[in-house]
Amino acid sequence: MKLKTTLMSIAIGTSILASGQQPIYLDKTKPIEERVEDALSRMTLEEKVRMCHAQSKFSSAGVPRLGIPEIRMSDGPHGVRAEINWNDWGYSNWTNDSITAFPALTALAATWNPEMSAIYGKSIGEEARYRDKNVMLGPGVNIYRTPLNGRNFEYMGEDPYLSGEMVVPYIQELQKNGVAACVKHFAFNNQERWRGSINVVLSDRALYEIYLPAFKKAVVDGGAWSIMGAYNQVWDEHCCHNSRLLNDILRGEWGFDGAVITDWGGAHDTKQAALNGLDIEMGTWTNGLTSESKSPYSDYYLANPYLNMIRSGEVPESTVDDKARNILRLIFRTAMNPDRPFGSATSPEHYAAAKRIGDEAIVLLKNNGILPLDPAKYKKVLVVGENAVRFLNEGGGSSELKVKDMFTPLDALRNTYGNGVTYAEGYRSGRAMYEREDRITQNTLDSLRNQAVAMAKDADAVIYIGGLNKNAFQDCESTDRREYNLPWGQDKIIEELVAVNPNVIVANVTGNAYAMPWLDKVPAVIQSWYLGTMIGPSMADVISGKTNPSGKLPFSFPKRLEDNGAHSFGAESYPGIEREGKSPQQQYLEDILVGYRWHDTKKIPAMFPFGHGLSYTTFEYDKASLSSNLMEGDKSITVTVPVTNIGKVAGKEVVQLYIADEKSSLPRPLKELKGFKKVELNPSQTKVVKFEITPDDLKFFDDKAHEWIAEPGKFKVYIGSSSTDIKSTLQFSYK
Amino acid sequence: MKLKTTLMSIAIGTSILASGQQPIYLDKTKPIEERVEDALSRMTLEEKVRMCHAQSKFSSAGVPRLGIPEIRMSDGPHGVRAEINWNDWGYSNWTNDSITAFPALTALAATWNPEMSAIYGKSIGEEARYRDKNVMLGPGVNIYRTPLNGRNFEYMGEDPYLSGEMVVPYIQELQKNGVAACVKHFAFNNQERWRGSINVVLSDRALYEIYLPAFKKAVVDGGAWSIMGAYNQVWDEHCCHNSRLLNDILRGEWGFDGAVITDWGGAHDTKQAALNGLDIEMGTWTNGLTSESKSPYSDYYLANPYLNMIRSGEVPESTVDDKARNILRLIFRTAMNPDRPFGSATSPEHYAAAKRIGDEAIVLLKNNGILPLDPAKYKKVLVVGENAVRFLNEGGGSSELKVKDMFTPLDALRNTYGNGVTYAEGYRSGRAMYEREDRITQNTLDSLRNQAVAMAKDADAVIYIGGLNKNAFQDCESTDRREYNLPWGQDKIIEELVAVNPNVIVANVTGNAYAMPWLDKVPAVIQSWYLGTMIGPSMADVISGKTNPSGKLPFSFPKRLEDNGAHSFGAESYPGIEREGKSPQQQYLEDILVGYRWHDTKKIPAMFPFGHGLSYTTFEYDKASLSSNLMEGDKSITVTVPVTNIGKVAGKEVVQLYIADEKSSLPRPLKELKGFKKVELNPSQTKVVKFEITPDDLKFFDDKAHEWIAEPGKFKVYIGSSSTDIKSTLQFSYK
Repeated sequence: MKLKTTLMSIAIGTSILASGQQPIYLDKTKPIEERVEDALSRMTLEEKVRMCHAQSKFSSAGVPRLGIPEIRMSDGPHGVRAEINWNDWGYSNWTNDSITAFPALTALAATWNPEMSAIYGKSIGEEARYRDKNVMLGPGVNIYRTPLNGRNFEYMGEDPYLSGEMVVPYIQELQKNGVAACVKHFAFNNQERWRGSINVVLSDRALYEIYLPAFKKAVVDGGAWSIMGAYNQVWDEHCCHNSRLLNDILRGEWGFDGAVITDWGGAHDTKQAALNGLDIEMGTWTNGLTSESKSPYSDYYLANPYLNMIRSGEVPESTVDDKARNILRLIFRTAMNPDRPFGSATSPEHYAAAKRIGDEAIVLLKNNGILPLDPAKYKKVLVVGENAVRFLNEGGGSSELKVKDMFTPLDALRNTYGNGVTYAEGYRSGRAMYEREDRITQNTLDSLRNQAVAMAKDADAVIYIGGLNKNAFQDCESTDRREYNLPWGQDKIIEELVAVNPNVIVANVTGNAYAMPWLDKVPAVIQSWYLGTMIGPSMADVISGKTNPSGKLPFSFPKRLEDNGAHSFGAESYPGIEREGKSPQQQYLEDILVGYRWHDTKKIPAMFPFGHGLSYTTFEYDKASLSSNLMEGDKSITVTVPVTNIGKVAGKEVVQLYIADEKSSLPRPLKELKGFKKVELNPSQTKVVKFEITPDDLKFFDDKAHEWIAEPGKFKVYIGSSSTDIKSTLQFSYK
Repeated sequence: MKLKTTLMSIAIGTSILASGQQPIYLDKTKPIEERVEDALSRMTLEEKVRMCHAQSKFSSAGVPRLGIPEIRMSDGPHGVRAEINWNDWGYSNWTNDSITAFPALTALAATWNPEMSAIYGKSIGEEARYRDKNVMLGPGVNIYRTPLNGRNFEYMGEDPYLSGEMVVPYIQELQKNGVAACVKHFAFNNQERWRGSINVVLSDRALYEIYLPAFKKAVVDGGAWSIMGAYNQVWDEHCCHNSRLLNDILRGEWGFDGAVITDWGGAHDTKQAALNGLDIEMGTWTNGLTSESKSPYSDYYLANPYLNMIRSGEVPESTVDDKARNILRLIFRTAMNPDRPFGSATSPEHYAAAKRIGDEAIVLLKNNGILPLDPAKYKKVLVVGENAVRFLNEGGGSSELKVKDMFTPLDALRNTYGNGVTYAEGYRSGRAMYEREDRITQNTLDSLRNQAVAMAKDADAVIYIGGLNKNAFQDCESTDRREYNLPWGQDKIIEELVAVNPNVIVANVTGNAYAMPWLDKVPAVIQSWYLGTMIGPSMADVISGKTNPSGKLPFSFPKRLEDNGAHSFGAESYPGIEREGKSPQQQYLEDILVGYRWHDTKKIPAMFPFGHGLSYTTFEYDKASLSSNLMEGDKSITVTVPVTNIGKVAGKEVVQLYIADEKSSLPRPLKELKGFKKVELNPSQTKVVKFEITPDDLKFFDDKAHEWIAEPGKFKVYIGSSSTDIKSTLQFSYK
């Protein structure tokens, strides 16, 4: 600062104790837009630009002289990440940042219960607030396109309707704590391979019908205060400063008024960043000092290069005014919201929330009747598998968490089945957490397997808890899986275990589908997920029957990888093709036929279909009925279906509603999820489940007309317990 | 946490989304004591104990599960210190922690203007709030007993009345930001030598009349929310857990309901800490892991050892309840105060505040008329001395600051006197900031001195800006000065400069008095202080006359060290005597005759007396008068004195009122400050200054009766421009 300027400017400060009028921007009774404009009017160009980029790994600057706080961000979406160093990726090794690990978002989606989503958002919001975070980097609603995507565990499955319904309460409850959701990764970061550069080619139909709806609900219905740009490109422009994605769709069509934040290091061009709707550039490197600057962040695209571009007139100053408005709005909603509560962390309520979500998330895939495994009957229980003891919140990338407590499956099973529980590793995954080389010697695997099999011979039952983990090339950010089968010889060990003991229950922990060559041989398969702090108690309670499982798959489990739509077209579709002198590119050749839409329409049965999940009780669906078999104009009709628990234990059932357009001018999937309700039923209890069908539920996106269209004609309504287990089929006409 | 306990305790959490009744402790409409009791009733013993000690270098734990935030502290008292690492004393190297450096508290005291104190508290409170601090470790009101105390610059001088009047507005305005003052160092940390162990022996009269009054005002009138225990001992018990000091006086006599925090590492005994009124133990080391504990702080006296002592019944659990109450009260007043403003930092208002305080703090000690130094007349100005360019906020110990801007005297003088200003180092202080060895070779000093003297020959005037700095053995925590003279050959260089140029203005920067063997030879002496960010502009404006100096000394400048009371009794009095098998001990043998009380009573004139400070204008005191020459019972009388500015420029004068007890049953100082008012007067303007004298102003502490007594008899009132420049003497009787 120049001395003379300062001496002049401080002359105004003589009445410092005079309790003069409060400036509008500090007056919480004033409308937020008025406060934004008032604050903006007081800021210098430099201060505005300073807001538009990182000042550290996880914060961006406020305006100290005006008392506008900085923005503190934390990785999510399954808990509040431990503190990271100011300028590098090392952990700060503080001791006040241990938190509750909540189930992975895939698990949340598997509950098919928006109430769980609300509980999740509330709980994680309270933890974030207690940790003084203003922005939680999550939730993620990228569509599950391929089971190889290393980051699927952070998303909510393959269906835009399910993802959209589930993301809204999470955001709403999170933000009640004065903590912004940052919905990610906008958009098409549907694989980790080449994520930083790959150009995604897709149709406008796939765009609007499959990949955008959950983001739109997050923004329009959830009211998300921020959104994170994806690493990849679309239309040959990076998503973090993509004109169509951010200017036309996000702000134009959806009216988003929050802040767009890059994924870390996702900005690549100052002019695009200036013009195309980006607000805050965050980074993966910090120390690229330029000769003209003294701050390690000043050479960011939205730092000095942007300032210079404004000064030279290459981009208008109005661009930074708009960015500052978006950022100020975010600050007023979070750090400067005087009414936000204080939050809390690692409370019994949060552990209970994690447990409840986990309980409702676990999916019973197969059961010949051995489950629930009666603790009175089964005493000598052998637990096999690394995931019975492994802390699965370590690794995986940015969603890694430092938990205060971790209750492992083995501990919980010992708690349930008593001292007769024994344990064998069975297999061992590779070395370091972030080790890109995840090999282990065959000798080691052989010897671990042989030991487990020997122990299995003596057991009443074997509970196999394997699956994937957060190592590279498993369920892990920045890499995709390299195979559809389970790694480290797990198929072999399961086969050998079941050969010596018929009571092998497979209860795998993954965030992705995988092959089950041994499926026919094992009596029961449970799909668990990364359930965080309470993984053990949730799993043990489902296995023992204390909890009746009620989760449903949020994505299909194909029998073979090539049965998945994205993998039906070769490298052009996945993982993409490298191009000479350009970034790699991929085409979404399956188009709108993602997940069950593919299996259904192409008549390729999945191993376990979307929406599948068994119970320890039996639900009987009575005949469904329609309030009318004619839908007219913008009127809606109602579907009613009585469901009865005819089994012996209480349980929860997710009643699913799919709609099919019998004939349409553009190709459509065989059916699409348009409603679901989770109902709890005691034995013999009947509940009548109602769905309202609106004309919107009939629409497809007409890419030529660029609008959503419901074409007159006949439609089918399917009521099912999964996408293939259809209990009632109804028909109506729309005109 | 045990698995079973957890599973039981989380069972309560089923209605997590139900917006049940807000607990009392979170209800801001409820009285604070009710909230404290409610929170306390929900806490486990372990949680209470966890609150009573550090969790990091500068924070103590809250109760995460209840949403009770941690306490974040920052060193003060001249600005908010930069972020320190979690577990060691290294700086975190963040980039969001640059602040405004305000003038040192000695400078604040030298303003003799409580309005400056209020501005100071408001400004630093806003900066602390912006930095999210809950407790500012300051202000300090230890009494200036010896000019060798390395930490005097952090205190407010030698007089309990002046310190007390000045500390109150600081605390009140600071705390309006929801940031607690932590008044320090309670008590008798009046030297740094042996500070961690020395046992101070003093009379109850010195205790109550000299060393405690400013602390009492801070607590009772200022309403300080926390207080810091001193390192040293008194009555052979460490101050941080001193039964008489904390239980009897602080909480008993003064009714303090805040938190007592140790100086860092100031606790030494668990049982004393448990029983004697300490609340939070902070530390200087962290990693003394014991076998039973996994946390680096768990072996603190108030950590596991305390927990074990409670469990074994050696100390009652009620002790930790009381501590938790005090800590909860502190949290409700700070981190959980929902009405606190957001603060701000490095604002023009704060720079203006620093400048105004600095302007009013500088003391014109001597002036033969050369000052103000007319910029129109003096063009070739040589500036000599390290402190003209040195960043004096570096070093000094815990009060070290990382400033956003620093306007040095040299820059400001160039700004004022133009391009004719030249600079010579003149001398150079020792090496590293915290270097205990502060020597420099004589050759270097000779050559720097010779160069400056050579340059001085050509100059119209020389402005010498030296003094002390924040190196060890200067004005620096943890060491005392080793000599009363200025170090690094400064006396010699000043003598040589004035030998070649009669226009040498000495404008030294110190926090302590020092010898001036060259005083008679130089035409003008300015006492500057550590004025922080705005030191340059404040000094340049005083030198050039843009500011008319109005500071008054808050402590005496003795001619020789041995003229100071504490130094009149040898090592027993200062620095104390080492004792075989016991801690060192010192006796305050000058007793109540501290500072001017000593000079006055013992008739040993100071070089510059307490309250001294010249102006560029002349103030004429008309005859003072009393409303009555009889004070009866609890009635007060009024003193009136008209003061006129008979000079040519506007100025401010501090009118001082001293009272003398002509005859008393116990010895009393010749006179004591009991009132002061700073008035601003334009040329020819007269203001009538009024003081109210109350019977309390006549009292001394009767140590036998343990009460304050005003004895009937005759009293004198002195109205003066300093403690020796008495303008009016009045007399009245009290009965």
